[in-house]
Amino acid sequence: MMEKENRKLSKSSHLPLYQQVVVYIKNKIISGEWPIGSKLPTQREFAKLFGVNRSTVVTALEELKAEGLIEGKMGASTKVVNNTWTLLANTAPPDWNKFVKTGFYKPNQSIVQEINKAESDLNIIQLGKGELSSELFSVENLHTVMHRCINRIDSLGYEVPKGLLPLRQELSKYLSTIGITCSPDSILIVSGALQALQLISVGLLRQGSTILLEEPSYLYSLHIFQSAGMKFSSLSVDNQGLIPSDIATKKQRNQSIIYTIPSFHNPTGIVMSEKRRKDLLQVCEKENLPIIEDDVYRELWIDTAPPLPLKAKDRHGQVLYIGSFSKTLSPGLRVGWLVGPEPVINRLADIKMQIDYGSSSLSQWAVAEWLSSGLYAQHLRAVRGNLTIRLHTMLEALEKYLQGIATWNIPKGGFFIWVKILPAIPMQKLFETALDEGVLFYPGSIYSSACTQYLRLSYSYASLSDIKQGIYRISQIVKKLM
Amino acid sequence: MMEKENRKLSKSSHLPLYQQVVVYIKNKIISGEWPIGSKLPTQREFAKLFGVNRSTVVTALEELKAEGLIEGKMGASTKVVNNTWTLLANTAPPDWNKFVKTGFYKPNQSIVQEINKAESDLNIIQLGKGELSSELFSVENLHTVMHRCINRIDSLGYEVPKGLLPLRQELSKYLSTIGITCSPDSILIVSGALQALQLISVGLLRQGSTILLEEPSYLYSLHIFQSAGMKFSSLSVDNQGLIPSDIATKKQRNQSIIYTIPSFHNPTGIVMSEKRRKDLLQVCEKENLPIIEDDVYRELWIDTAPPLPLKAKDRHGQVLYIGSFSKTLSPGLRVGWLVGPEPVINRLADIKMQIDYGSSSLSQWAVAEWLSSGLYAQHLRAVRGNLTIRLHTMLEALEKYLQGIATWNIPKGGFFIWVKILPAIPMQKLFETALDEGVLFYPGSIYSSACTQYLRLSYSYASLSDIKQGIYRISQIVKKLM
Repeated sequence: MMEKENRKLSKSSHLPLYQQVVVYIKNKIISGEWPIGSKLPTQREFAKLFGVNRSTVVTALEELKAEGLIEGKMGASTKVVNNTWTLLANTAPPDWNKFVKTGFYKPNQSIVQEINKAESDLNIIQLGKGELSSELFSVENLHTVMHRCINRIDSLGYEVPKGLLPLRQELSKYLSTIGITCSPDSILIVSGALQALQLISVGLLRQGSTILLEEPSYLYSLHIFQSAGMKFSSLSVDNQGLIPSDIATKKQRNQSIIYTIPSFHNPTGIVMSEKRRKDLLQVCEKENLPIIEDDVYRELWIDTAPPLPLKAKDRHGQVLYIGSFSKTLSPGLRVGWLVGPEPVINRLADIKMQIDYGSSSLSQWAVAEWLSSGLYAQHLRAVRGNLTIRLHTMLEALEKYLQGIATWNIPKGGFFIWVKILPAIPMQKLFETALDEGVLFYPGSIYSSACTQYLRLSYSYASLSDIKQGIYRISQIVKKLM
Repeated sequence: MMEKENRKLSKSSHLPLYQQVVVYIKNKIISGEWPIGSKLPTQREFAKLFGVNRSTVVTALEELKAEGLIEGKMGASTKVVNNTWTLLANTAPPDWNKFVKTGFYKPNQSIVQEINKAESDLNIIQLGKGELSSELFSVENLHTVMHRCINRIDSLGYEVPKGLLPLRQELSKYLSTIGITCSPDSILIVSGALQALQLISVGLLRQGSTILLEEPSYLYSLHIFQSAGMKFSSLSVDNQGLIPSDIATKKQRNQSIIYTIPSFHNPTGIVMSEKRRKDLLQVCEKENLPIIEDDVYRELWIDTAPPLPLKAKDRHGQVLYIGSFSKTLSPGLRVGWLVGPEPVINRLADIKMQIDYGSSSLSQWAVAEWLSSGLYAQHLRAVRGNLTIRLHTMLEALEKYLQGIATWNIPKGGFFIWVKILPAIPMQKLFETALDEGVLFYPGSIYSSACTQYLRLSYSYASLSDIKQGIYRISQIVKKLM
């Protein structure tokens, strides 16, 4: 219910500790922050939050119960049932918890919510996060870039619907280096790749549309398409990427579209071969199927760059191409892009205006400057070198600790190693025990119900010693569960 | 179809001008940027874009027609019908234009699209924009703030779901100055007020829900709620704000919620009186109706601050409170906030993570610094002084030029004057002629179908001389149309 913040109680206060807890909770209830129907944190969570014994919490809760403000068995299911005004006035405030359950958006899977929470815990070894370590973020470059771009900014107004023109111009130049010819008119700036998918789902696809995609896939971990009433249909995959001959049989009567991550696939790390890319485009042209190409990991290669994007060979405007600075530079900038035929970009720009009136100008100026100054290209070289070291560290740890009880791919880029645990152990238990012991990874089940035996391990974020330590701990738990 | 950019043709090229036009259009078609089915710009638009005579454009289009790439009567309805590969290969690329018409998001009203376009035209007097003039944006403050906050940033990662904690802490302090008690846990950072509405529409409301609101209202100009399948029901309004006794009869069987802009209403400028605020809260408590309070103009008062927000008197967590820095500081930052009961904020934070993984950290740091340094409070004082001058300039111009043929309110804050044109002239014609003559205002019809005789004039953006000139031109057109 709460995020970490300093809420230690005062030992020198004239109020006893349990009374301070009562006051804290009462204020939450009275102010309406915890409306009627809210579930209270558990006793354990309260104790941790305030740094007090559980008995202190129990005393406080008993008092609140006696006052009629909360109800329920002490422990997990305590709820707010009244506030001081409803006790006085006998009126019923709106049941927000009912509202919270309606709305057509599905909540994130509870496991994803749990992950989101654990990811801001500094005491946990983060082998889940698909994000560059902050040691790879150059604060000096940020300074340089901000100094330079601040001088170009005379105001920060609403930008044109497609996003800051100087940024789109820089992107158009950058894209030509990976074979994509497009003018700034065909580029839409988005607040990260996820927003591009969001816009496509509400702007282009009908309810009941079918998304054909690799399984496992990052997309299975999201709800944006399902929330909008779309269906998934999985395509077969081998180590060359998805198998295009599968498409004709999977295509549905209703509107269908392909979603693929051809370079350093998330979570499997697979790179689609050149031949496959050619075949895929050909099949899609024949079947008249549009493609969403999610290419956010492209620049994060180890030894050699992946084949050119599908979009580079796209002669008919068949491909919507998604890129982002979140993986390569910094997710906090919230800048990504979408390249496609102009009518599509116009339509999605119009929807973006309805949704959030555009992305942060400040971020857009900063990224434009990163590109034009050459600092972005320089940064990418440094990142590649560093990721290589991290990858090798993780591979060594895997060999040392998980040899014989797991198998894994050796990725050619990206952030992830896709690990299969060989013995049939309870994987949910592995996840929970690891989290209890301070190691977070992403379970394979969130990417496919057929992948419960897998873990996605990220080598991009944790320190080298944490990578070793994390894998060691996982190996110990696996051995215990065998 | 295109935004302004330098596309002047080269007079020294070995290619004749019309051939350069042919090459330009061919590249657009071949690259897939203008897929089959795309409507071409009109001859006039092409001529303007390239800075050539219309006859040059006609020659170019004839050539492309002869090659079978485009078809249609020359003029408005020319379309791409083939590209070089379809001509060769006889395959049919995906019909993106069909996709563009599907998706459950409605496109912006065409008049709103037209306005969005005209707003980036520097030659037009902008009496529509609800945005501060760039002269009110202090670049020095931006420098100061960025220098200070850059030193606090060690990386720009994903933020916690509710947004940057230091910003929420600063907001919590700021909100206490306007009577709202809330902890950082009850605040969600959003990418502008519009996103707050977007999140509420997909996260809390069921399809078929009813929004009770003032008519006219800003909300009528948006599609976010209708796109999500909700209905509007209008409440009566007088010069004290909406009339709460109206609510019981308007409340629907299905889920209902109130949307109101109590301070400096957009577009009417009305300030809800203290008495009305009290009555409204009482009725809503009785009827068990939640309230969305949109308070983005609060700080932009002329002589005295408006009454405290509804949220300040909200004892039951009945009110969701929306604020933003877009109107007071800069829309380009894309930072707004939503205050509400914690379960609601948690739910919407979860959805925000699904939609865009949070707002720009860079912007959030900058705003936190603006608040903590005191520069925001200082800036607000300067803005109020300047808006006062602008308002008086516009009122004088109205008196001078529209006396007797229009009536208007005298706003106590905000950005807008709500003007009623008295003679029964064709208002669509007024809008179009004004735009042709370089003056943009927002027609009342986008805020209510009953308000076709109204215009919303903004005094926040145009220069003082443009304000006078713009109103003069409007008055001349009105007189001609009488």
